[in-house]
Amino acid sequence: MIKVGIIGATGYGGAELLRLLLSHPEVEVASLAAKMDRAREKIADIFPQLKGKTDLICNNLDIEKMAKVTDFIFLALPHKTSMKIAPWLLEADKRVIDLSADYRLQDGETYKKWYKVKHTSKHLLDEAVYGLPELYRNKIKDAALIANPGCYPTSVILGLAPLLSHNLIEHEEIIVDSKSGVSGAGRFAGDSFNFSEVAENFKAYKIMSHAHQPEMEEQLSKFCQGEVKVVFVPHLLPLKRGILSTIYGKLKKEARSSEVLRIYHKFYQNEPFVNVLDNELPEIRAISGTNYCQIGLHIDRSMKRIVIISALDNLIKGAAGQAIQNMNIMCGFNETEGLGLSTPIP
Amino acid sequence: MIKVGIIGATGYGGAELLRLLLSHPEVEVASLAAKMDRAREKIADIFPQLKGKTDLICNNLDIEKMAKVTDFIFLALPHKTSMKIAPWLLEADKRVIDLSADYRLQDGETYKKWYKVKHTSKHLLDEAVYGLPELYRNKIKDAALIANPGCYPTSVILGLAPLLSHNLIEHEEIIVDSKSGVSGAGRFAGDSFNFSEVAENFKAYKIMSHAHQPEMEEQLSKFCQGEVKVVFVPHLLPLKRGILSTIYGKLKKEARSSEVLRIYHKFYQNEPFVNVLDNELPEIRAISGTNYCQIGLHIDRSMKRIVIISALDNLIKGAAGQAIQNMNIMCGFNETEGLGLSTPIP
Amino acid sequence: MIKVGIIGATGYGGAELLRLLLSHPEVEVASLAAKMDRAREKIADIFPQLKGKTDLICNNLDIEKMAKVTDFIFLALPHKTSMKIAPWLLEADKRVIDLSADYRLQDGETYKKWYKVKHTSKHLLDEAVYGLPELYRNKIKDAALIANPGCYPTSVILGLAPLLSHNLIEHEEIIVDSKSGVSGAGRFAGDSFNFSEVAENFKAYKIMSHAHQPEMEEQLSKFCQGEVKVVFVPHLLPLKRGILSTIYGKLKKEARSSEVLRIYHKFYQNEPFVNVLDNELPEIRAISGTNYCQIGLHIDRSMKRIVIISALDNLIKGAAGQAIQNMNIMCGFNETEGLGLSTPIP
Amino acid sequence: MIKVGIIGATGYGGAELLRLLLSHPEVEVASLAAKMDRAREKIADIFPQLKGKTDLICNNLDIEKMAKVTDFIFLALPHKTSMKIAPWLLEADKRVIDLSADYRLQDGETYKKWYKVKHTSKHLLDEAVYGLPELYRNKIKDAALIANPGCYPTSVILGLAPLLSHNLIEHEEIIVDSKSGVSGAGRFAGDSFNFSEVAENFKAYKIMSHAHQPEMEEQLSKFCQGEVKVVFVPHLLPLKRGILSTIYGKLKKEARSSEVLRIYHKFYQNEPFVNVLDNELPEIRAISGTNYCQIGLHIDRSMKRIVIISALDNLIKGAAGQAIQNMNIMCGFNETEGLGLSTPIP
Repeated sequence: MIKVGIIGATGYGGAELLRLLLSHPEVEVASLAAKMDRAREKIADIFPQLKGKTDLICNNLDIEKMAKVTDFIFLALPHKTSMKIAPWLLEADKRVIDLSADYRLQDGETYKKWYKVKHTSKHLLDEAVYGLPELYRNKIKDAALIANPGCYPTSVILGLAPLLSHNLIEHEEIIVDSKSGVSGAGRFAGDSFNFSEVAENFKAYKIMSHAHQPEMEEQLSKFCQGEVKVVFVPHLLPLKRGILSTIYGKLKKEARSSEVLRIYHKFYQNEPFVNVLDNELPEIRAISGTNYCQIGLHIDRSMKRIVIISALDNLIKGAAGQAIQNMNIMCGFNETEGLGLSTPIP
Repeated sequence: MIKVGIIGATGYGGAELLRLLLSHPEVEVASLAAKMDRAREKIADIFPQLKGKTDLICNNLDIEKMAKVTDFIFLALPHKTSMKIAPWLLEADKRVIDLSADYRLQDGETYKKWYKVKHTSKHLLDEAVYGLPELYRNKIKDAALIANPGCYPTSVILGLAPLLSHNLIEHEEIIVDSKSGVSGAGRFAGDSFNFSEVAENFKAYKIMSHAHQPEMEEQLSKFCQGEVKVVFVPHLLPLKRGILSTIYGKLKKEARSSEVLRIYHKFYQNEPFVNVLDNELPEIRAISGTNYCQIGLHIDRSMKRIVIISALDNLIKGAAGQAIQNMNIMCGFNETEGLGLSTPIP
Repeated sequence: MIKVGIIGATGYGGAELLRLLLSHPEVEVASLAAKMDRAREKIADIFPQLKGKTDLICNNLDIEKMAKVTDFIFLALPHKTSMKIAPWLLEADKRVIDLSADYRLQDGETYKKWYKVKHTSKHLLDEAVYGLPELYRNKIKDAALIANPGCYPTSVILGLAPLLSHNLIEHEEIIVDSKSGVSGAGRFAGDSFNFSEVAENFKAYKIMSHAHQPEMEEQLSKFCQGEVKVVFVPHLLPLKRGILSTIYGKLKKEARSSEVLRIYHKFYQNEPFVNVLDNELPEIRAISGTNYCQIGLHIDRSMKRIVIISALDNLIKGAAGQAIQNMNIMCGFNETEGLGLSTPIP
Repeated sequence: MIKVGIIGATGYGGAELLRLLLSHPEVEVASLAAKMDRAREKIADIFPQLKGKTDLICNNLDIEKMAKVTDFIFLALPHKTSMKIAPWLLEADKRVIDLSADYRLQDGETYKKWYKVKHTSKHLLDEAVYGLPELYRNKIKDAALIANPGCYPTSVILGLAPLLSHNLIEHEEIIVDSKSGVSGAGRFAGDSFNFSEVAENFKAYKIMSHAHQPEMEEQLSKFCQGEVKVVFVPHLLPLKRGILSTIYGKLKKEARSSEVLRIYHKFYQNEPFVNVLDNELPEIRAISGTNYCQIGLHIDRSMKRIVIISALDNLIKGAAGQAIQNMNIMCGFNETEGLGLSTPIP
């Protein structure tokens, strides 16, 4: 039984984390903090979905107080805020999972370029472990600071890792066309995410300028000799949750679907949360509300083209669920503990 | 050809008004104003739906400047703001249609009770005409100031007027269960109208405390000896546009559907924008995007109960369309001019 | 550990039942049957949400075969089909929960009137127990045949039971304005439930002619001297799951909200799945995906009117979840076993 | 004034055509036909959106009768059905616009390969004009038979024509990632397009196997020396109307956005229904309900990559609107007549 704190509990990521942790048998949620309108408030008064599940109070952050009652802390904060808090917590010997982007990039200069501020705790960038269990499980075990991956990058890296690690595609010809549900923009996203602006609408945004792009490029480059550059175009879907990435690659040599699928199956054979589909394509409803990433693919042999589809729930495998998976690994719990989620039908 | 100004052109009501007026053959939109983030901006840069339709600029309000170039002014402002501007415009001899609630209630005390502020131009309450053409066409013709009705009240008054004017139902037993789309909350409605909060959700709100209730009560009372009190429960629908009110009445004596329908047909026989349905029930998709109000009904003879269903588009017949209908009447144009709208299928 | 069969596993009710039972620790799902296009098919090939969760095959019904491998059978069949199968299963000493309407009405004549066919196993109508645990827990324990309540009636009966049992409202003045998500129409609902017909639409249907009306009337009448008649108007919401009923009653004498809330709290004090809200109103997102029924109320003292809002998930508390709750009671399991569901945020 | 008939008036394409033609000043809709459940029915009883707009009756097709009362006929029929009817109509000297795919491909063998049947009026394939006004206005003028383009191809061809005609991109490196609303599947699409299956879902389908692919390839090849092959992946959006195609190209040489935009502006300078955006990206809400195609682009100079976004309403510019645009050209009407549509805000 570990005692957990969540800083940023009033955002969607923090609230999902809380919801899932409430039924985790090895965890006691000991403290919640966030920037509050009122000094303190029952979290279930903010999220009616939690009514009857918890009486926990959320307070403005008193970091020393929280440190006293917790062993393990999740930062579900906006980018640029986490890096102000994480160093203190690590000094105080807490283990920390940061759901923001602050420790995801290993290069402080890249951070500065994309996030438009200087990184204030660069010394931790080396120490932080990129929390993608399918690739870095061993490092995660002993980490003090986890940089929980972004939602788009998780879908893209899991989709491409088997191909790149087997050197099957041209690493300079990758195109990523991603589509995300609205919750990806967060709970305080402003009037342009009003229902009336988003329903019955669809659009691309931040073409080649989304901060998740350098994150996926940095990670994908680890599989290759050269540096991976991707064309990344995110789009906004009129639905609440889920990401589906359609990824286009150019095969280095001819390959059949069956061969490539075998490679994917092998690559993920022991992974509890990656589902490789043989004869079907991933869809958002199949993974919404779960920690699964579904992957499917299609090859056009004459054109030597491969299309990979990767789908996950942006708030679970793309945020809170993956954070819990990381916590489970760090604490020696069963990796799937608290993540046995299913998705309603229909 | 009249020259029109819109104050509050960046809200949904104002923008719909602009869109419709742009294809009105008797109108030139001469000036747009609103509380602007930047001093001036192309309105089509704010609403991509207007791209290619107009190059009009929206400015911060300079009321004297606007008065110089316009004859006719629409106020598409929040409640409590209109009453600060309308008196000045009337002094300047403009004709004014106010889409806010500021001049809808004839009793300043009721206004104060429901809107929580003192009315600052009470002297205009008598002069203002409640702009429901189906009831007050003659007064509208010569009015200088029109109080454009609320969206819920329009649906309810049109639904009940034939029954009350024929003294067919108990006026103390009226229950109104209304459901509105999200655009009713306006463009600047805040994070609780974020897509993720509203999609796949439904709820009642402001039971017996919505400010449209005294408005409908005041209007309905004009048909009766006594004062009408209604039970009014509004709900929020996960769709963009449209209101459907389900209205429950108690018949004073037995009546057949066919008789009552005949009364409705007669009551609205010359009305271009009220559709009484004989064998079907109104639905939002049938009127969305148009200036129509659809009305249907069901009678249970054994229980002496009547159910009236009334549906309209909250931003058109419930706001901008009705405002144009009023303008047409005031200016002697064909009443349907600029309102020949149809709704896409499906 | 009991061995369970589901007949009708390819409909939404049956599939939700399966999904929930798959993580029920006391249950082994031993057999699935349905009217199949192909003779046999993996259920996860029909419902991608079940991929990775089960390899169960669904077959055309072979009732003898199913009887051999199961102790307990759920009928998730269309009305009129269950009554052909249930008698045989009871003869074979199975315990049966029927999710259809076939055994909900105690009066075979009422059944015939509303379902337009003669009941073919009337002798079981007396024996069947109406499976609403909050009212009939003791009878459910020993029942062989449970008539699992309808979704609308569950919301309405739970909403009204405390009021009627305390004789607080006029039983002839009840108005029920219910709104249901689209999944209520089932998986094979036809082209009029196509996304394009339903999205951005809202309508009432079957006013005073929905077959759930006599069901709620029969049940509500048990609390009164006289026979309860309700005005029942169902509506179709553009969302997938959830029912919200707005119920209007006339108080027999003045009462404060606080008093009436106390009565509700007491009535449901030991109920694990009924949440009475004090200061808020129920909303669908708060209960979607769970077995909870949320109840809130508002009283207008001057008008002696009470408005009760009752919300539940039509496929869980309104179908599959309630069926499992009944099974838990029948089998002596913990009543909440397998029903510790939470709903994603947002 | 021409007399028009619509065959297939009960599908979405046919109904939209009817709706738009009803307010076309040069057109009288003289006859409607479709495969009817009942022998004859008011079209407004099938589509409540038409209530109050028309009393037209839709009948089972009697082709001789229709030929007698019409000059001009629209076929809004499923693929494979049009080719049975068009030859007869042409013999009878009618001008025909076919909204199906039957005359879009010039090569009968390609048709057979993709539509799995032999073409039964191959002799008309040469005569039929591909009805994309922006490319073939002159041929359209005198055509007797128009093959109205598919919705996806319209978005893609308009998006790529300026680039290919200026030889700016590699014609073997084109990737088309398209997303369409649900109405694209038609009114009789079956239970897998039930609201509950589609809402909150998103998926790719028919990767490299959608029959619109050879159509766009055949058309795009006309701009090049070589044969264009595209990677085409369509997706299903949870919204009613609209297509957005994200198209990826590889520039033959470096180019700036401003230069390429200039080429696009020039290419479409006289086109009433193509909007090239300079600083923004197309979105579906901006063109929904109109005959516009919006095009925007982004260039990454270091990677020599261009991303083109093209958005249109699948039932208007992608079907009924484009058909009317073609009719206007064929009949010498103003090309924009009856197409001055705007889209509601929001």
